[in-house]
Amino acid sequence: MKEDILYFASDYMEAMHPDILQRLIETNMQKSLGYGDDSFSKLAKEKIQLACNCKDAGVYFFIGGTQTNAVAISTLLKSYEGVIAATSGHISVHEAGAIELRGHKVLTLADREGKLSAEQIKSCVDTFNNDGNKTHMVFPRIVYISQPTEYGTLYSIEELTKISDVCKQNDLLLYVDGARLAYALACEKNTISLQDLAALCDAFYIGGTKCGAMLGEALVVPNPKLLPNFFTVMKQEGSVLAKGRLLGIQFDTLFTDDLYLKIGKNALVLADKIKTALVDNGYKLYLDSPTNQIFTIIDNSKLESLSQKVCFSLWEKYDDTHTLIRFATDWATKESDVDKLIEIIKNLA
Amino acid sequence: MKEDILYFASDYMEAMHPDILQRLIETNMQKSLGYGDDSFSKLAKEKIQLACNCKDAGVYFFIGGTQTNAVAISTLLKSYEGVIAATSGHISVHEAGAIELRGHKVLTLADREGKLSAEQIKSCVDTFNNDGNKTHMVFPRIVYISQPTEYGTLYSIEELTKISDVCKQNDLLLYVDGARLAYALACEKNTISLQDLAALCDAFYIGGTKCGAMLGEALVVPNPKLLPNFFTVMKQEGSVLAKGRLLGIQFDTLFTDDLYLKIGKNALVLADKIKTALVDNGYKLYLDSPTNQIFTIIDNSKLESLSQKVCFSLWEKYDDTHTLIRFATDWATKESDVDKLIEIIKNLA
Amino acid sequence: MKEDILYFASDYMEAMHPDILQRLIETNMQKSLGYGDDSFSKLAKEKIQLACNCKDAGVYFFIGGTQTNAVAISTLLKSYEGVIAATSGHISVHEAGAIELRGHKVLTLADREGKLSAEQIKSCVDTFNNDGNKTHMVFPRIVYISQPTEYGTLYSIEELTKISDVCKQNDLLLYVDGARLAYALACEKNTISLQDLAALCDAFYIGGTKCGAMLGEALVVPNPKLLPNFFTVMKQEGSVLAKGRLLGIQFDTLFTDDLYLKIGKNALVLADKIKTALVDNGYKLYLDSPTNQIFTIIDNSKLESLSQKVCFSLWEKYDDTHTLIRFATDWATKESDVDKLIEIIKNLA
Amino acid sequence: MKEDILYFASDYMEAMHPDILQRLIETNMQKSLGYGDDSFSKLAKEKIQLACNCKDAGVYFFIGGTQTNAVAISTLLKSYEGVIAATSGHISVHEAGAIELRGHKVLTLADREGKLSAEQIKSCVDTFNNDGNKTHMVFPRIVYISQPTEYGTLYSIEELTKISDVCKQNDLLLYVDGARLAYALACEKNTISLQDLAALCDAFYIGGTKCGAMLGEALVVPNPKLLPNFFTVMKQEGSVLAKGRLLGIQFDTLFTDDLYLKIGKNALVLADKIKTALVDNGYKLYLDSPTNQIFTIIDNSKLESLSQKVCFSLWEKYDDTHTLIRFATDWATKESDVDKLIEIIKNLA
Repeated sequence: MKEDILYFASDYMEAMHPDILQRLIETNMQKSLGYGDDSFSKLAKEKIQLACNCKDAGVYFFIGGTQTNAVAISTLLKSYEGVIAATSGHISVHEAGAIELRGHKVLTLADREGKLSAEQIKSCVDTFNNDGNKTHMVFPRIVYISQPTEYGTLYSIEELTKISDVCKQNDLLLYVDGARLAYALACEKNTISLQDLAALCDAFYIGGTKCGAMLGEALVVPNPKLLPNFFTVMKQEGSVLAKGRLLGIQFDTLFTDDLYLKIGKNALVLADKIKTALVDNGYKLYLDSPTNQIFTIIDNSKLESLSQKVCFSLWEKYDDTHTLIRFATDWATKESDVDKLIEIIKNLA
Repeated sequence: MKEDILYFASDYMEAMHPDILQRLIETNMQKSLGYGDDSFSKLAKEKIQLACNCKDAGVYFFIGGTQTNAVAISTLLKSYEGVIAATSGHISVHEAGAIELRGHKVLTLADREGKLSAEQIKSCVDTFNNDGNKTHMVFPRIVYISQPTEYGTLYSIEELTKISDVCKQNDLLLYVDGARLAYALACEKNTISLQDLAALCDAFYIGGTKCGAMLGEALVVPNPKLLPNFFTVMKQEGSVLAKGRLLGIQFDTLFTDDLYLKIGKNALVLADKIKTALVDNGYKLYLDSPTNQIFTIIDNSKLESLSQKVCFSLWEKYDDTHTLIRFATDWATKESDVDKLIEIIKNLA
Repeated sequence: MKEDILYFASDYMEAMHPDILQRLIETNMQKSLGYGDDSFSKLAKEKIQLACNCKDAGVYFFIGGTQTNAVAISTLLKSYEGVIAATSGHISVHEAGAIELRGHKVLTLADREGKLSAEQIKSCVDTFNNDGNKTHMVFPRIVYISQPTEYGTLYSIEELTKISDVCKQNDLLLYVDGARLAYALACEKNTISLQDLAALCDAFYIGGTKCGAMLGEALVVPNPKLLPNFFTVMKQEGSVLAKGRLLGIQFDTLFTDDLYLKIGKNALVLADKIKTALVDNGYKLYLDSPTNQIFTIIDNSKLESLSQKVCFSLWEKYDDTHTLIRFATDWATKESDVDKLIEIIKNLA
Repeated sequence: MKEDILYFASDYMEAMHPDILQRLIETNMQKSLGYGDDSFSKLAKEKIQLACNCKDAGVYFFIGGTQTNAVAISTLLKSYEGVIAATSGHISVHEAGAIELRGHKVLTLADREGKLSAEQIKSCVDTFNNDGNKTHMVFPRIVYISQPTEYGTLYSIEELTKISDVCKQNDLLLYVDGARLAYALACEKNTISLQDLAALCDAFYIGGTKCGAMLGEALVVPNPKLLPNFFTVMKQEGSVLAKGRLLGIQFDTLFTDDLYLKIGKNALVLADKIKTALVDNGYKLYLDSPTNQIFTIIDNSKLESLSQKVCFSLWEKYDDTHTLIRFATDWATKESDVDKLIEIIKNLA
């Protein structure tokens, strides 16, 4: 890492929220049982059940999003079933075929700004059901969406309810990837609460790694009968930590005093400041994304100059002379760094 | 099966070519070694090597196309590699996720009349190679095409050569699904021989089930080092017949006196007769397909009437008032049945 | 195959029973629907249901034993479950890890002459249940046995009933591999009928390949709800024949006029004749096996001489100067060949 | 956890060594690149390469032993290959079938005090090679052993060298599970160094979780060409941490000032004290184990009394009136707790 460069490449650049670190320090030499049977993990599960208003939910801690998605989804599917996802969905592209490794097809649908609609899902299922050769095809069984999406956009409660209804009517399970859920929950435009997710989905995960934890995601399954003997499934997948307390302590802290609901706020305020600066200086935003990821289009001639001062994500080719890039803020982003970034943007314009 | 209905639904409606049956009768009570070590299988392999002008080629007999594709492709891939195929490709849709079951992603590209182009493949690989997150993605490694394609169209030798070149330049393997290869080889418009396939591809299979055998496909791999200990792979997949002679006898017969090269002729002549009749009677052909599958568009109001007299394949919805249907002829189709079909078509027009 | 050698190496040396060949000849050019929807397959299923006195049983045709075992067992298991089998069980040794390929552990127990006892199974389950770390272990879920066993021995109805009881009491499924079932059913000492198997097991297969068919096994599952959408599972496994009629016709013939119940008789009579000759001439039988496999111990000094005149199976090293070998008879073995074998045995003694 | 109970159940009861915690505190708010591209991870890898005297070794960080074993071993094997392990081996029993889940058979050999011998391995390979049906069987390809073993015993450098030689002569790979390696390295009786492991094995892992890290194991592969594109394999397995720094920081600390070589010392001294006390008070040690695990046999009538005061591991039934139990010490065990344990042992005797 170079000292004189600004880092806006992702939302996992620092280690962990100071409250979590403090708790690790306090508990370091305490002895505890292994494999998640410790008191910290139990407490964390109870707090998450409470926050989701779903006291019987299964709560399972994983070390990362790819593992959570792959293990949960493959366990929920029979061998001949597949998962519907957006073409831009994380499981469709950037998880190195983890779903396929475990034997299942990702059935992709074109998304609109990262989102699928209830109508698309219905149409996909109808097409399958009407095919004379449907028994020669993968059966759609799970719908996978992300909140926020890969493009930082948000589903509304109306949209999620419609999708949930279509799923129930067609014997589909609904799975929500919440890798960046804290940035949705802290957003003013957001209309979906944790309780809503628990009420409308069959499974979702509360992202830790990108939201202030050093590592960890909490999978929530309102009806845990869907995942019998899931500890053993996790064990054989290599997902179980001998010192499970390390995940328990983190989520216990994140769900104490509503830290998780508030932790994304800083990122959102600063992301808005960057967006405004981009627009004010004549840059085009790729889409109107209300969370912590900012997608903008930049003239290729300016790319090198920008990259000498700022570390950002090259998203994709936009056209022959422009590129889509992404900045991300997070819970730890400093306003002073944002101000420096805005200065660079101005000068480059 | 109703007596008074004409059957044009597929090219696997009869059991086997009379020459094969005759050979089964002659050899029935002979004793032979098991698991493909019989003399019939050895002879069949030698004849196929000769026909392909590739005497060192590995030749492996399977019982069907899905098994051949799934076992060969998954064995050629490392766990993180995937196979490029047309959106309409058989492995993409109608093999029930057999490739994914074995751990691999099918990377689909939009096809044109069932075909992929060298340019598309190059572009797909370039996109992968230029992605900053390519190590988070499935690596493209095999290109899967069919000859003839799912729509009965044919690659030309120029097209295949270009695709082969792109593959070689980009460290991709080229795999050709020849489930209906006999209908390509017997076609006047065809420009690709068995020898060409052996020279340009890393693996291909010579279809038996749809081309006169009762069951069986012959996988040809010019460089058999690509598939070490492949017998054991086939054994664990459940692909090995204890009485392997049954596949050997069939392919021995198909490759005696050029039967395989000629067996598709009858189907092509009769398919042409049907196509001409369709056009003459005002039906629209969906595409110009030179082999044994005929795709035509039919007014939905006529569907029921037609289906009372003819058994055909419902392909897909064409528009709100029309449906795409398929007739198929095969090596055993009788001209008298074709004449009856044409009469029905006329009356329906 | 050398003309002047006698073949007693296995029970799959000829192609098919003449009645089956005759039926193939008669039906060869009839058209039929594909993928097992033909009338022959339907009839065969009904006859098997009737023979098993279980009219709602699921009956599924496969091409070979390894495939049947692997697909059925892996489908009946959840990812963390395993199958209990004898150390000498076919799935434990000679199916190239087909169960493991599909993700499951074979939990082996030492067998006695190829057989497991109800007590052993109970003890295995108890050990698992009493282990403090049982959630870190594979859960036993299926018991796999063979009738006849790998050593040609037979379970009695009392033994099978006890095993079935232990399974029911411990939430285990019972699976019986009947690759050579015809040689049990035709044996005078046998006390287990097809109806018994259907009443006591959760799944079993009626072997065709080693019992007169050219290929094929019939999996019988009394409660087909155990295997939802099993056609699609078979499709993705590559187990489905486009011309499913070929399996249907064979089993239809085998279950017409009780052919399957009688087809093993010839093998048993001739096996007894060989056993008597061995004992009369001072050879030691390895065990008292009442079916078509004969295991005898031979002095190493005589092995080469014998192998110049007879093709048999080398089973395993017995001690430093002796080897365990196997002769097998089948439905097609000729008495004249047996007489020649006995002459050789005599001269060698 | 009850306050008034002593904990000797395992070696992962505390969180992390204070030096590691200190380093986490110092670096917490530094920004770093994701997915292991951070400077901490790079430094840690270099230090491990240096400690192993193998500067080109591939070093890969995982979160736990099951995952390390499963991902490394399954990647090193072709689909039809298996891994030889002791019956008591961790992969054979307590990893919930993780190797089988990924498609491979564990070929077990009876161990002597947790150890395999070169002769056993040779004999296993010979048996395979001499089997007439070897192509119907799983090919042995990797030998898996543990240092220390599951029973706390140690291989000597002579034993390891012999095993390594047999592996090389028979085209087998040698893999060493070092979950508790620190307790071997700090042991006076140990004769195998990290450099020896790198010289004699094809892959081994340096255990962190049980040796002072909060989580993490370092897989070392002297010839990294054995694992092409292994990052992507790890990604699809869900093994990659977005904040890979957390593993890097830990191993950097463990390999600074030889901490890893020394960290086990405390455990060994205290384990010896417990062993001496057991023997002095008339208890029988199950075996002479020089590392941090103590196996002793206890009269069942004393089990309940002991378990009210001490938390230990129930290992297995010894005979009808005795049970084998295990105490474990670790880097953080306090001498005062050991003294209390000895007092309890005395009183119970």
